[in-house]
Order: sequence, then C-alpha cells, then structure tokens
Amino acid sequence: MRRVVAHELLRRAAELYPDAEVVDPAGRTTYAEAYQNAQRLATALARRGVGPGTVVGVLGVNDRRFFELHFALSMLGAVIHPLNFRLPPADLAYTVEHAGDDWIFAWAGFAPLKEALGPRVGHWVWLEEGPVPEGELGYRALLSEGRPETPDLARRVEETDPYTIFYTTGTTGRPKGMRYRHRDILLASLAILHHLALHPGGAHADAGDVFLPLIPFFHIHAWGAAFFVPYLGAKLVLSGRGGPEEQLALIRREGVTWMNMVPTQLHLLLEAAGDAPLPLKVLTGGSPLPRGLARRAWQRGIRFGLIYGGSDQLATAISTVPPGVDPESEEAREALATWLLPVPFAQVRVLGEDGRPVPRDGKTLGEVVADLPWLPPEGYHKDPEKSRLAYREEGFRSGDLAVVREDGRFFVVDREKDAIKSGGEWIPSAVLEAVLSEHPGVAQVAVLAMPDERWGERPLAVVQPAKGAGLDEAELLSHLERAAAEGRIARYWIPDRFVFVEAIPLTSAGKLHKAALRQQLGLGKG
Amino acid sequence: MRRVVAHELLRRAAELYPDAEVVDPAGRTTYAEAYQNAQRLATALARRGVGPGTVVGVLGVNDRRFFELHFALSMLGAVIHPLNFRLPPADLAYTVEHAGDDWIFAWAGFAPLKEALGPRVGHWVWLEEGPVPEGELGYRALLSEGRPETPDLARRVEETDPYTIFYTTGTTGRPKGMRYRHRDILLASLAILHHLALHPGGAHADAGDVFLPLIPFFHIHAWGAAFFVPYLGAKLVLSGRGGPEEQLALIRREGVTWMNMVPTQLHLLLEAAGDAPLPLKVLTGGSPLPRGLARRAWQRGIRFGLIYGGSDQLATAISTVPPGVDPESEEAREALATWLLPVPFAQVRVLGEDGRPVPRDGKTLGEVVADLPWLPPEGYHKDPEKSRLAYREEGFRSGDLAVVREDGRFFVVDREKDAIKSGGEWIPSAVLEAVLSEHPGVAQVAVLAMPDERWGERPLAVVQPAKGAGLDEAELLSHLERAAAEGRIARYWIPDRFVFVEAIPLTSAGKLHKAALRQQLGLGKG
Repeated sequence: MRRVVAHELLRRAAELYPDAEVVDPAGRTTYAEAYQNAQRLATALARRGVGPGTVVGVLGVNDRRFFELHFALSMLGAVIHPLNFRLPPADLAYTVEHAGDDWIFAWAGFAPLKEALGPRVGHWVWLEEGPVPEGELGYRALLSEGRPETPDLARRVEETDPYTIFYTTGTTGRPKGMRYRHRDILLASLAILHHLALHPGGAHADAGDVFLPLIPFFHIHAWGAAFFVPYLGAKLVLSGRGGPEEQLALIRREGVTWMNMVPTQLHLLLEAAGDAPLPLKVLTGGSPLPRGLARRAWQRGIRFGLIYGGSDQLATAISTVPPGVDPESEEAREALATWLLPVPFAQVRVLGEDGRPVPRDGKTLGEVVADLPWLPPEGYHKDPEKSRLAYREEGFRSGDLAVVREDGRFFVVDREKDAIKSGGEWIPSAVLEAVLSEHPGVAQVAVLAMPDERWGERPLAVVQPAKGAGLDEAELLSHLERAAAEGRIARYWIPDRFVFVEAIPLTSAGKLHKAALRQQLGLGKG
Repeated sequence: MRRVVAHELLRRAAELYPDAEVVDPAGRTTYAEAYQNAQRLATALARRGVGPGTVVGVLGVNDRRFFELHFALSMLGAVIHPLNFRLPPADLAYTVEHAGDDWIFAWAGFAPLKEALGPRVGHWVWLEEGPVPEGELGYRALLSEGRPETPDLARRVEETDPYTIFYTTGTTGRPKGMRYRHRDILLASLAILHHLALHPGGAHADAGDVFLPLIPFFHIHAWGAAFFVPYLGAKLVLSGRGGPEEQLALIRREGVTWMNMVPTQLHLLLEAAGDAPLPLKVLTGGSPLPRGLARRAWQRGIRFGLIYGGSDQLATAISTVPPGVDPESEEAREALATWLLPVPFAQVRVLGEDGRPVPRDGKTLGEVVADLPWLPPEGYHKDPEKSRLAYREEGFRSGDLAVVREDGRFFVVDREKDAIKSGGEWIPSAVLEAVLSEHPGVAQVAVLAMPDERWGERPLAVVQPAKGAGLDEAELLSHLERAAAEGRIARYWIPDRFVFVEAIPLTSAGKLHKAALRQQLGLGKG
C-alpha cells in the first residue's frame, strides 16, 4: 500500500507531470529526470551503506541537486539534515555532531568549511557539475554508479519513520534540533498549500502557478515548498546563490507567479526592481511585515499572505482576507499583514499569565500556544529538559505575544523575548518598528529594551536611515506623536532614545539581529 | 498533541467558524452548537457504556443529527456504521450483524425496520425532534443527559483507531464491509477537496462555497462531505428526505453553489428545474456521465467534475481541465466527463491481462488498479478470502476497465462485469450507452450482455424513451451507424437487439440496476 512518505510525491509528479520543470540558474531538469536521478542516487548510496536512520547533512544553496537529494534519501529511510550555512562555524559544527551526520553533501562554495566539518563525518560528497578534487567523490560520479530503479528499502519506509532534522537559528545559546517524521513534515508542508488554495488571501496558490521559493531549504525545506510544489506538479524555480538582481531575471524569464521570502528579502527585491511593476503572489513571514513595506509592495502589484510558524512548530497560521472584505482594499492589505487564521488541523490558543485564554478583544496580550498534529514527537532532539519547558500538554509554548480577535484570528505582536516590560506593562517593539518603518526616511529600524532604573526597561530605537534621507530625532518623535494621537500606539511607548546606524545587522534568516545589536550597543539581554 | 481524528475537524470549525450554519429542511444550527451537541451526546453515551470500538449503526437521511453523530462517536473512539437503507432488508440485517452493531440510531421514517433490526442490537435511539414511543430513547433526551464537555476518552483516540465501517452495494452476493481508520477516511475525504481547489475543473471548491451533498451519508459519508465541509468552515446544507423539488428550493433559499450527486440525480434535478438556469458546481460519478446529459447540464450553467472511486477504495481520481484548454470550451466539457487525474497520493495503474501497464495510447483496455494510502488495512472486514483477491501487493483490483492517455490521465470505460466479451474482444457497454443517450428520444439506456452461440456474448440495448418521443429500432440503428462512421464506436459493437421499456430500474445508489434488468429479461450473469 502507498504511504504518505516524501519520495511518493516525486514519483507521482514524475508519472503525471513528467515534463514539468525544475529550473535553477545552472540549468533545468524535469520531474521525470529528477525522479530518475533520485533513484540513481538512492541505489548508489544504498550500496555505499546509507540506509534507514543514516543522517546525511546537505550544505547547499537551493538548486536541483539539493532538491533531488530530498527524495533519494527518503527512498532509503535516511534522515536529511539541511545545514544552515549562515550559522557561525562553531554552531554549524555543533549541529553536525549533535545530529550525528555520517555523510555531508557540500557545494563547492562551502569548501572552506570542509576543514571544520569533514573530520566529523565519514563521507563527503561534492555537489558538483564538473571535476572534483583528486580522489574525492562528486554528485555526478555517484549518479553514474546508480541505477534508475527504486531501491528495495523504499517499500519499507513508514510514515512514522524519522525523515528530517534541522536546527533553530536562535540568537542565544546553542541551536536546538527538531527531528520530524515523514508524516509530520508532509502534513505541515501541504497544510500551507491547502490553506492558500482554500481561503481568500494574497498568496493564493494552485496548479497554475510557477513557484520560486527564496526561503532556503535549510529553513523547513523552503517552508515546505520542496514538497508541496512537486505534490502539485507545478514548475519549480530555484535561485541558487543568486541575489535580488538574479532573482528578478529568473522571475521574468521563467514566468514566476508565486514566491516565499522574509520581509527583508521583499524589501531588497523591491529595491532591485526599481519602478517596474512586480505582479507576484508572496508568502512572507519570519518577522513582522512592516506597514510601510507592505504598502510599497502592494502598490507595486505584490499581493501577500503572512505565515506564522517556526522550525520548532512548523506551519501554524496564515493570514487571509476576512469574509466580505474586498480583496483589493486597504482593509484587506491590513488584514493580510496582521491577522492570522490557523492552518488546517492547527489549534492556536493565546494564554494569559494565569494560563487561561485571553479575551477575544483584539487588545489583551498573551502567549501563543500552538497545538499541532506535527509537533516533533521527541520535542527538542536529545534535550529532554528544554523539551519539557517548550512542548507541553497544551501544545508548543512559542514565547510569542499575540492578541485575539472575536473571530479567533490572532495577531502576533512580538516575540516575548523582544518585548519590553516597562512599569509592569508590555511594550511591543514590533509595533513601534512597524510605525517607525512607515516614515519615508527610515530604511530599517529595530527597537530594543534598555535597562531603566525607574521603569525596569524602556524602549530604544536603532534606525538605519534611507539613502540620502536627512533624518533626525525630532522628525521621528513628531511622527510617533502623530501615531499616538491617532491611537495606534500608547504615548508611553515612544522610545526614550534614538541611535542612528549605517546598517542594522541581520540574522542568517534575514531577520533583524537584535542580539548582535544589543552587544554592539552594550545593552544586556544578549 | 492534536491528532488527525474526526472530532478535531468540528472542534476547529466551532472555534473559528462558530456561526457558520448547518441547515436541513427541519431547521438550522451552527458549528458551535453542533459541536456542543456532539459533546453532549458523547458524554451521555459514554455514561451508557459506549466507548472505544463500540459499533453504532445510523439509519438516517442526511440531516443535522446524523452530521452531529459523526463527531460524537469520534470523541468516544466508537465506530460509526452508516446504514444503507436502500439495501433489501435481509442484506441490511446482514450488515448490522456482520459489523457487530451494538446501537442503532434511527429516523422515524424507518420505524418499519425496527422489527427486523431491533432484536439484533442492544440499544435503539430515535433520531427524533418530538416525542418518542413510551419507554424508548430519543435523541433529544440523550442530548439533555449530556454535558457540553469533551469526554476524557477523546484525548485517547488515535489516528490509527478504527472509525467507520460501511458496506458495498454490490448487485451480486452479500454486501462486503470495509472498516476505515480516522486517518484513512480523513485523508481520502480531504484529498477530494484539495484536488478540487488545486486543479482547474468544473467542481472547484473553496471556503467561499455553500455545500449541498445529495450523496447520502451512507455512501462514504456523502463522498467525504461530512468531513471536508466542516474542515473548510463553510456552510453545509443537507436535504433530509427531500426530492428534486425540495432540493431546488433549498438550493435557491440557501445560496448553494456546490453539490455532489450521481448522474441520475443530475438528470432528475435538471428535469425539476425546467428551463431555469442552474449555475452550480457539481461533482458527479458512481456511473459514467452520459454525453447527452453532460451537454444538457452544461448548457444550463452547470459545471461539473467526475469522480472515480468507491466504498472499497475511497477517492481515487477526479477529472480536470487539461492545461491550456479554455475551461468554457466543448473540449473542456468532454475532458471533464471522461479523463481522470489521480487525486493527491493516489497511484493508478491500468494493467493488461499480462499484468503489465497498458500502453498510454488512449485505446488499449486494461483493469484499473489503485494504490492508495487509505485502502482498508484489513481489506474486506472479516473476509480474508475475498480480500486476498481484491487487495493485492500492487493495490486494489477494481475490476473496472480503462484506457490511459499519454499524460497519465485515464478514462474508465466500463465496469469489467458489465463489459461484453464478443468474439474475444471487449465491447464496453458504457460507451454504447453514452452514444445512445445522445439521441434526443432516449431518456435512459442500459446495454447488457446477451448469450450468443457464435460470439459468446452480444450486446442488447434496453431503452427507456423520453416522454412523447416516437422512437424505433431503425432510428437508433441509423444513429449508431453514424457514430460508427465517425469512428466513435466499432461497427461490431452495434447491438443485435433493442428492447423498449417504460422505466429502467435503478440501484440504491441511483445507478442502472443491470442485475434486476437481466433478471427481468431472463438473461444470465445476474
């Protein structure tokens, strides 16, 4: 009997959409060829001892080979470990050790990492098109060792076998690992697509779309796109290591209609596009979508949906246009940038400090607790202590703060650790950042907690001015005063201090790197 | 952790769509109320001893109560057995015994069956609004015994626990039972909705639709609508025991946009509507869609999709508009009435007599073998012998004949048992029926196998003329000659004999009842 395992998705795509393409900057293939390659790889790797439970790290950008590896490893019951190459090398090495990687597939651009990682693993394969160093193994050589047949092991892979492991990109402490089963990662990935197809929103997706995920495979397999695009049988475009200019060229050449990306990438893509219209459907998330950016994107023809989730909970909720609202209206844009509807099967509760759901009043802050059928069975990998704190009877304690509307939709106001506790009240830094980002002179902004003798903490705004903008504190203060007068923020939220910098550091996920900023500014709570 | 179990769907609907309605001819409720009722029922039934594995028969039409029972029983880990009241009473009694029903919930209209079924079960509940016979138990009394709380048992229900059992409506032999787990029936039901939302077709469905399933709950839970409509949070309209006139009134009053039904019901609905336009999206199947009916429906504004599956395999494939084809064209209509695309996760192979896939040439006939992740784990319930024949390593042997197109889409030409073997060649009766039904003078038509000394079998056409049509054999022969000249049928397929009848008997599923016809006409192969 067929099972819900990863390689079945590509098998079906190869049968029903054999000619649909998988494109990257270096070339193009089809689902039929990609499936054959996955079979060749799997049979070759099986002969070399890869089998159920073998952990295989992949140090690569989003390209055809990394895509194929997903399915080859699935056929063997092996576990794929997409390596986050933006982690500091010591952390990266830690994840390789901790996950127990026995093999690493690496792209040439990451050759400098071989010295640190190579000795820790038994086998190293170069993800190369051309020649590889003398005596070393390359992807093409491996392909030619294999046969275009599904290995016998494939029939024994169960939905509840482990399939993938990846790590948080937390800004404090060691990365935490989550190991998911086939069933978990597939249910969660497909829930994203199904939600987008079933509910009105800006990032609607169906079989008519051409997909280009900018989210790297090491972030939840490009937020599930590695699975839901072949599931659909649609064309998949991968951007390799290309930046915004190359992405734009690919979008135009390949007829891309749907993308995913973090807000920072959206900002960069808009900048690269200049004044040209950019009619795209974009799923964004990972950090709040600043209002100013949302408006600019909308005006350029981008329609978006906001996704909320994370490595440790997978997909949880996606914004939609509420019933009865014109999808082209400002009200729709506002809703799409804020109000989240849980994805299929997800239960989201926002709990106050007393452990009870906060009132559905759109105002009272509480912690997002997500109960999902795809939470990792073990919690954090080999970390029962942290698991006990985060994965509870009631679900996953996200540490994020949200408010809930009467209709059950919720708005993630802030990451708990980023919020500022001032005089016993939470000040949501993300809301302040959103309001500040609407000022045309602001390119990026981060609001941090600053220790304060009287209030405990007070907000501090770090501002990266737009090129050529003559921006000063008085200007920003009067901008915030207006927002307060409009009731959008409380007056006591207005930061006590403004710091102007040339560039705000970003994390490996393209989010504001507040920990680095705090360190830079000599603030605590690093 | 949340699980993929039936009652979770209604819980989520009650939380996120509390005011969305469930309507039947006797009244209306909301998802919030329906969930409370399910909780009340479950707690009351738990006190009366219903628990994991208890089998509960439901003898009802599609109404709010039957809907609620689906979720109440799920909360207890009990097994729901929707009883097919159109079966002959002896067969119905057989299924009650065979499934091991301990309880029966029955609608008053089925009171005459109590004598036959009542003694076989321990508990009988009337699905009544008003008073019930002295000393007997009614639905409302049970509700008032319960509390609006989820019973403790609900937390222990697993995705792999059995949840539903139902029986084939085969025209020969005893009904065969299939018992499915939560995971099986939910994956299959949602696959239908996801397919409709993701691929271009006539029966597109999403959260904007209002659903009225005409398929009874006892046919795979209204072809999955009992689950996928609350999953969507959409309005659900149920037709109770209403006929075409009442259905039309409901459609208009409740703003129905999406329905499912067998072709016979479509025919009756069109007749009832007279000349009025009927802009609906309709999922149809269960038997081939006659071309003439497809064209008439299309002209009246109905857009349709064809589904292929069955009680013993659940959802397998749904027709779509091929890429690049104008969805309003005749080509689209033709494709939607014939060519099937496997639903998500389904693998369909069409195997020749040598056990190998037939060529993808659109001509060569083979047997449909469906490999699906939701086939019943046990095969036919308590029938290992028949199970071994039907549920094989390669999948479910459907006994249906199909041809496959180059793109992997397939067309179910006939049920194997209905096809006619003439001179060693198959004559597909369904194709002949489709061609004959295009004649304006034909209301219904069935083509049967007639024993023949020379050829083994030859086709016989049984024709029910349209009201007032002066139809004779010569007229039909020349119609078929034209079809043969156009290459649509082979000349040797033309029936040797025509029989005109006033009405062709239908099965409990609304399909042509060929077994009854054969008996009537004194033919074998009954």
